Amino acid sequence: MSLAVGVIGAGVMGSEHARILREATPGAHLSGVCDADVARARQAAGGVWVTTDALELIRSDRTDAVVIAAPDITHASLVLACIEQGKPVLCEKPLATTAAEARGVVEAEIKASRRLVQVGYMRRFDPAYAEMKRLKDEGAIGSPLILHNVHRNPVVPTWFAGPMSVTNAFVHEIDASRWLLGSEMVSAHVRSLGAGDPLLITMETDRGEVVSTEVFMNCGYGYHVHAELVGQKGTLQTITPRLVTENLSGFSRGTYPDNWIPRFRNAYIAQLDQWVKSIRSQLPGEGASAWDGYLTTKIADEIVAAMANGVDAKLVPEAVPALYR
Amino acid sequence: MSLAVGVIGAGVMGSEHARILREATPGAHLSGVCDADVARARQAAGGVWVTTDALELIRSDRTDAVVIAAPDITHASLVLACIEQGKPVLCEKPLATTAAEARGVVEAEIKASRRLVQVGYMRRFDPAYAEMKRLKDEGAIGSPLILHNVHRNPVVPTWFAGPMSVTNAFVHEIDASRWLLGSEMVSAHVRSLGAGDPLLITMETDRGEVVSTEVFMNCGYGYHVHAELVGQKGTLQTITPRLVTENLSGFSRGTYPDNWIPRFRNAYIAQLDQWVKSIRSQLPGEGASAWDGYLTTKIADEIVAAMANGVDAKLVPEAVPALYR
Amino acid sequence: MSLAVGVIGAGVMGSEHARILREATPGAHLSGVCDADVARARQAAGGVWVTTDALELIRSDRTDAVVIAAPDITHASLVLACIEQGKPVLCEKPLATTAAEARGVVEAEIKASRRLVQVGYMRRFDPAYAEMKRLKDEGAIGSPLILHNVHRNPVVPTWFAGPMSVTNAFVHEIDASRWLLGSEMVSAHVRSLGAGDPLLITMETDRGEVVSTEVFMNCGYGYHVHAELVGQKGTLQTITPRLVTENLSGFSRGTYPDNWIPRFRNAYIAQLDQWVKSIRSQLPGEGASAWDGYLTTKIADEIVAAMANGVDAKLVPEAVPALYR
Amino acid sequence: MSLAVGVIGAGVMGSEHARILREATPGAHLSGVCDADVARARQAAGGVWVTTDALELIRSDRTDAVVIAAPDITHASLVLACIEQGKPVLCEKPLATTAAEARGVVEAEIKASRRLVQVGYMRRFDPAYAEMKRLKDEGAIGSPLILHNVHRNPVVPTWFAGPMSVTNAFVHEIDASRWLLGSEMVSAHVRSLGAGDPLLITMETDRGEVVSTEVFMNCGYGYHVHAELVGQKGTLQTITPRLVTENLSGFSRGTYPDNWIPRFRNAYIAQLDQWVKSIRSQLPGEGASAWDGYLTTKIADEIVAAMANGVDAKLVPEAVPALYR
Repeated sequence: MSLAVGVIGAGVMGSEHARILREATPGAHLSGVCDADVARARQAAGGVWVTTDALELIRSDRTDAVVIAAPDITHASLVLACIEQGKPVLCEKPLATTAAEARGVVEAEIKASRRLVQVGYMRRFDPAYAEMKRLKDEGAIGSPLILHNVHRNPVVPTWFAGPMSVTNAFVHEIDASRWLLGSEMVSAHVRSLGAGDPLLITMETDRGEVVSTEVFMNCGYGYHVHAELVGQKGTLQTITPRLVTENLSGFSRGTYPDNWIPRFRNAYIAQLDQWVKSIRSQLPGEGASAWDGYLTTKIADEIVAAMANGVDAKLVPEAVPALYR
Repeated sequence: MSLAVGVIGAGVMGSEHARILREATPGAHLSGVCDADVARARQAAGGVWVTTDALELIRSDRTDAVVIAAPDITHASLVLACIEQGKPVLCEKPLATTAAEARGVVEAEIKASRRLVQVGYMRRFDPAYAEMKRLKDEGAIGSPLILHNVHRNPVVPTWFAGPMSVTNAFVHEIDASRWLLGSEMVSAHVRSLGAGDPLLITMETDRGEVVSTEVFMNCGYGYHVHAELVGQKGTLQTITPRLVTENLSGFSRGTYPDNWIPRFRNAYIAQLDQWVKSIRSQLPGEGASAWDGYLTTKIADEIVAAMANGVDAKLVPEAVPALYR
Repeated sequence: MSLAVGVIGAGVMGSEHARILREATPGAHLSGVCDADVARARQAAGGVWVTTDALELIRSDRTDAVVIAAPDITHASLVLACIEQGKPVLCEKPLATTAAEARGVVEAEIKASRRLVQVGYMRRFDPAYAEMKRLKDEGAIGSPLILHNVHRNPVVPTWFAGPMSVTNAFVHEIDASRWLLGSEMVSAHVRSLGAGDPLLITMETDRGEVVSTEVFMNCGYGYHVHAELVGQKGTLQTITPRLVTENLSGFSRGTYPDNWIPRFRNAYIAQLDQWVKSIRSQLPGEGASAWDGYLTTKIADEIVAAMANGVDAKLVPEAVPALYR
Repeated sequence: MSLAVGVIGAGVMGSEHARILREATPGAHLSGVCDADVARARQAAGGVWVTTDALELIRSDRTDAVVIAAPDITHASLVLACIEQGKPVLCEKPLATTAAEARGVVEAEIKASRRLVQVGYMRRFDPAYAEMKRLKDEGAIGSPLILHNVHRNPVVPTWFAGPMSVTNAFVHEIDASRWLLGSEMVSAHVRSLGAGDPLLITMETDRGEVVSTEVFMNCGYGYHVHAELVGQKGTLQTITPRLVTENLSGFSRGTYPDNWIPRFRNAYIAQLDQWVKSIRSQLPGEGASAWDGYLTTKIADEIVAAMANGVDAKLVPEAVPALYR
């Protein structure tokens, strides 16, 4: 039976998830869309049921599983409602706007004794990141030493300030680094340039690896994400996905997209595909768990607090609850 | 309702089609597999119905649509059986082993007054080829002038001789060139090196464009397909899909796959996806029609005949039957 | 003692040679410049002797060796004057405007029993071409089979017609292919698109190798020269020399130059350097000899004649005179 | 008149300088070589005068200018001897093994009221670095914000410990960053991995730019130097100089050299060329002055001291003496 998936939130990301569910997710179909703006919900729904009531969508018999792409502030409570209903949920990052709230989700899941939550850190499903992990796990470059990340976005509004670069953008590197290295972060140092953009953030792991990241929200030229993993014997660099080289106007050139959606289109598709498959097979997937989502939010919070105090963040790894081992 | 697809042939390609139908084709599912070798059929089937009788599979109520990946010699008759049943069929290339047989399929389809046949020229669905076509159609490089193709395969058995390089490999460039340029081929010149490998084949189109192709079946180093489209204002080159760059052992390097399946994995997936969507929507897709399949086989036949005679092939474009316009 | 070099012709190429001799040629210095336009000569001379009389420059005691960059029509007679004076001469390509004239130069050199002439086919000194040859000679790719060349120029005046693409541009590929492969050309086939631009030219060698070249004088986007040598075990591709990648304005991009001078700057420098070293050491260099210059002009002439007649050019290799073996 | 240059030290670097002076430096010639090992001196000399007495070489009438490539410990005293003789000197980096000694050289030059010293920080002459600087100076990327450097070496002996990565390798980034940005460093933070290799070093400039460098002396795969300059509007990345791409053995690949000499061959040639031209023209060149050499050594010393104390280095810019403004 095809999995009936309801999407909450019909903004840019929610519409993209709805589209993927309608067009590109074997074993599942879009069964409903919820948005406060009914017209927007209808557009994303492509004919299926729409509602303005998120809890109605979560509780409905028409919904086997839920994708949450509503405003960040609503994430934790909507996820909790899904857990209450015993329904699998894929929640766009972040899991919650505070570590305490995220922790509440973890506790609820532990209480339910069942993993129902996946957090939408889609880099884990990006083909380049996945191949980098595969080769590293095979030992191609020996033990990892340094992970260099570049996370550039062409432009953000002026209200998008330094802390948001951490809580909104850098969270991807927090999750991807933990996943890629299989290590926990133990410290973070932030160097802020100009009016808070770009940031240079250096984290250390419990194995002594270093994760060095440039986060630049107004880089001007395009959306550009890059990673290089340096090991004892060699390095692996992600290739920016491009289809053609243009020889035009004096240049040999390849385009950068404007934002993360085209850059990570295949990652979003693979993420939903794997999520659906893990639900149907009742096997845990590669996706970020509620625990991962909690830790990422907690680390981001601690980094922002340390930035405010002008000190390094000390990150104390916590024991992993049995449910997530 | 999900489309029930039966696959005939459980060799390398048939198994790959079956796997994609099982795992990666929204709106469709694998409903049966036919192979003379039952064990092989079972392995590809992953639990669904298997049979050794292709006609049984085609006629069965369990089959809404058919994928043919059986030996080339069987293609035409199996496709005819599908047309007789009024069932959509995706036939691996070539449509038939002779132009006359392929023409027979076209006639049957015309008689049925309905397009049911797609031929598996998957390059049309390769993301790089599709992007090249999109940019060309937008006018990015002005009018096309030359299409340079490279089609290299690491190694073939000794019985794989010159004519097979045309009928088995170069057919992809025949179809891709017609599709990409939207032109018909009017002549072909073949230059054969050594014992018949590599070949350099030059075709001219009815618009005066030139398609220049190196077909090298024993290139030694990997499976490598490349195209550059030269227009009046610039050129477009396909990028070999790669995920990571390795800095290892004295080199900065990217891998070539061993064969076409990993190289065109995304094309095969997109091909089935579009085929299913076109069946469900009853709209014609981008895929190669029976007419395309017939013309490609005919052109290949004429090139092989001309090679045998040591002359250029004169290719006389035919009027396109109404059904295919 | 530093070699005193006089340059005849102070146009674009002559000025560049004069500049290299003034600034970048160890063991030699610019001693004089000749041009009908005295002001232009003075500009190129940077303070050294100028004259409007080419024969005066050739005969002068101030001249140990001569670089000819005057109009093509004057090449042969100026080279003959140098031979008469027993002075080494580096003549810009072509050696002569007709094969007969070029042959006359060869005869004069044979009569003088001494090799004094080098023709300015500078690709032999391009670092990428030289490296390709070195690797091929080492056997890295096994026996060569196909050489693919691309020779693109952004735009030429309307009077620059089809035959000039051969006599002015394609001559570089004639010489580079003979040098790189160490083979003689035995046939050439020209396919002309549109109003004679681009051309696709296919030559075969006495070893059965094929040289396939696109010559496109109005490609629009930049000056772009590329070669790929296909051997039995692998291929070698020249890399367009670039220093930086720019991430700007939505693209990752590298520039193409406007013309051959920046593209082959290092080749021109290396050519003069090797020429000076070979004169000083009295050892033959890697440069094109009068014989090479004659053969290239002869092949180009035969190709142009065949184009006019709409037939393939049959190129009959000649026995190499003893002086050039 | 050609400049007579004597080379002190006939090890790997000295021999390379001697070779370049013999073969590739217009306006100069190798006039003498000094080494304690006479046989080694003779080999580098290629026929010119050899001596085992460095002061004899410096004082000799046969020497117009001096290149010092002797052991680091001798640099300062030999440079002082050149200043005493009023002879221009190009000293391999470092200028001295301690900041105090280097400062002594600066004082001597100031006393002589004449700039005679250039320090061999050859990156300034690397074509890719020079082009990056040219584009940055033109404003192509707006104001610089971050300079990312990678400095990797395949393997070093075990005695090559952490501090040497700074004093021997990272000094190149200190000089190149000051030159490229035109800024002074005000702080440095070192993060040491494993047994002291790799290092991640972050410096800040007096303009608030950040220079982030990975120094990895045992990276395993090859000698690899890379820089990316991030500005407000875009970034510039150096391209590793390569001549050909090899399609071989399953890969598309380009080689890394074993060490800095092939990587920076053109930089060494350009450095000597510019040094000779600046001596002959009596105009200051782009090369690192004694002041630059002093500052680099001083910064390296302060970084090493800070490493030992486990603190960040505070770097206090000094007023530039009039001679160096």
